[in-house]
Amino acid sequence: MTLTRVAVAQLPLRVGEPKANRAAAAEAVAEAAAAGARLVVLPELVNSGYVFTGAEEAGDLAEPADGPTVTEWGRLAKDHDLVIVGGFCEMADGVLRNSQVMVDSTGTRAVYRKVHLWHDEQDVFAPGDAAAPVVDTALGRIAMMVCYDLEFPEWVRAVGLAGADLLAVSTNWPVSPVPAGERSVLLAHAQVAAVANRMFVAVADRCAAERGVSWVCGTSVFGPDGYPLAGPVLRDGPAVLVADCDLVAARDKATGPRNDVHRDRRTDLYGMSRTR
Amino acid sequence: MTLTRVAVAQLPLRVGEPKANRAAAAEAVAEAAAAGARLVVLPELVNSGYVFTGAEEAGDLAEPADGPTVTEWGRLAKDHDLVIVGGFCEMADGVLRNSQVMVDSTGTRAVYRKVHLWHDEQDVFAPGDAAAPVVDTALGRIAMMVCYDLEFPEWVRAVGLAGADLLAVSTNWPVSPVPAGERSVLLAHAQVAAVANRMFVAVADRCAAERGVSWVCGTSVFGPDGYPLAGPVLRDGPAVLVADCDLVAARDKATGPRNDVHRDRRTDLYGMSRTR
Repeated sequence: MTLTRVAVAQLPLRVGEPKANRAAAAEAVAEAAAAGARLVVLPELVNSGYVFTGAEEAGDLAEPADGPTVTEWGRLAKDHDLVIVGGFCEMADGVLRNSQVMVDSTGTRAVYRKVHLWHDEQDVFAPGDAAAPVVDTALGRIAMMVCYDLEFPEWVRAVGLAGADLLAVSTNWPVSPVPAGERSVLLAHAQVAAVANRMFVAVADRCAAERGVSWVCGTSVFGPDGYPLAGPVLRDGPAVLVADCDLVAARDKATGPRNDVHRDRRTDLYGMSRTR
Repeated sequence: MTLTRVAVAQLPLRVGEPKANRAAAAEAVAEAAAAGARLVVLPELVNSGYVFTGAEEAGDLAEPADGPTVTEWGRLAKDHDLVIVGGFCEMADGVLRNSQVMVDSTGTRAVYRKVHLWHDEQDVFAPGDAAAPVVDTALGRIAMMVCYDLEFPEWVRAVGLAGADLLAVSTNWPVSPVPAGERSVLLAHAQVAAVANRMFVAVADRCAAERGVSWVCGTSVFGPDGYPLAGPVLRDGPAVLVADCDLVAARDKATGPRNDVHRDRRTDLYGMSRTR
């Protein structure tokens, strides 16, 4: 059994302060590396922050995929010999994207553009039009996804069936009311993504209220059984959590001697779905 | 706004004691009716119990869909003017089925046969080969599903897209280890079924250990926001819980002024799913 130490970083980002944001990310990566992590997941829109006044402000903060943020992450990945997955505000061919990048010691492995856009993101970003990547890294097969994407079981299932050992979710989860004694249902999405596909799910959320928006601060790692291996933090402050994950074990989709979450799918019947 | 009182019954079933099991169900229905419920959800395999020695024992306990159990439920539904959804061990054309029936004051509305079979059920039952029903009742559109079915997002999405206001889950959830401070991840499946489709989910689980198998006792009702309106019980004893549900509200799939859990699906991309 090979255990891979996975880190998830909860960062206090601030809109319009790209240098401070990059520094917070670099510090978190260094902390994770010092703790022995081989994979570090960072939140959504690390370079820019989230609560834009509009597309113009976002455009001023956006960078290409070979801009200062991703370049720095590539250097950090090489220096520390680890994989980084994180979100950034991207300008690509004149189009703004809510993007996520994976870099390792060899350079950029994948750029993904969030396809399900939440609320006012629709005024700012063009949605992606490509599948969520599943990248065969030295550590295992790592899938990528951003925030609201996780709420679509079809999207999660696609990376599960494509062989993801771990799903890295970069997010900025805005707070909404949670009944006493419950925790945010957004965490249930992460749990079910994990258990329904017997894969690890690593969520990097953010902290520090921004222009009146507070965050779930739900940074966490879930195992293939759907239970937390680290977090959720649920505390408004920076955090780097680590969990040791047997990524190859996620290739076994058995949930008992006679059941398997992928083989038990009744694909012969799913086509029967009635749609209105 | 019309509130419909929904009841979920957690029953102490015993394998091989159909009369006692029917009596327990009838008592729960009467209690729910007295509390003003218009819909009562009962567990899986109410007539027979669950932990069979094999197909022969299950066959001895099975009934046709017009047998004593469903006939009694039909009478109760008429007497109390309510809808009953419950599971029963069915013999249909010489084939054993893990079935679920919906009856109302007009008679039997639907019979569903569980399509995803768990563990040793595979030695006993033939899996169903038809879609989970969504029945247009006097109360609203009620979908049906049994236990392990709920763990397949495709199956849940199908009834959501078919217009279900409420999903009635009849289950016997066997206990498995749960980390301290967590609750069974099976409840997360129910939460995500609800919130990913903005529908109510009513789960009737069972209680009372049977031949060494204990149960989650997760009887509960979740609202379209994914949070519990009643339960989960999580206590090993009989219970009838009620929750007042605005079923028509579940037809609004909006999660904010600019988002909708069904319309936001990227059906243009889901076909791109890579399968191994």
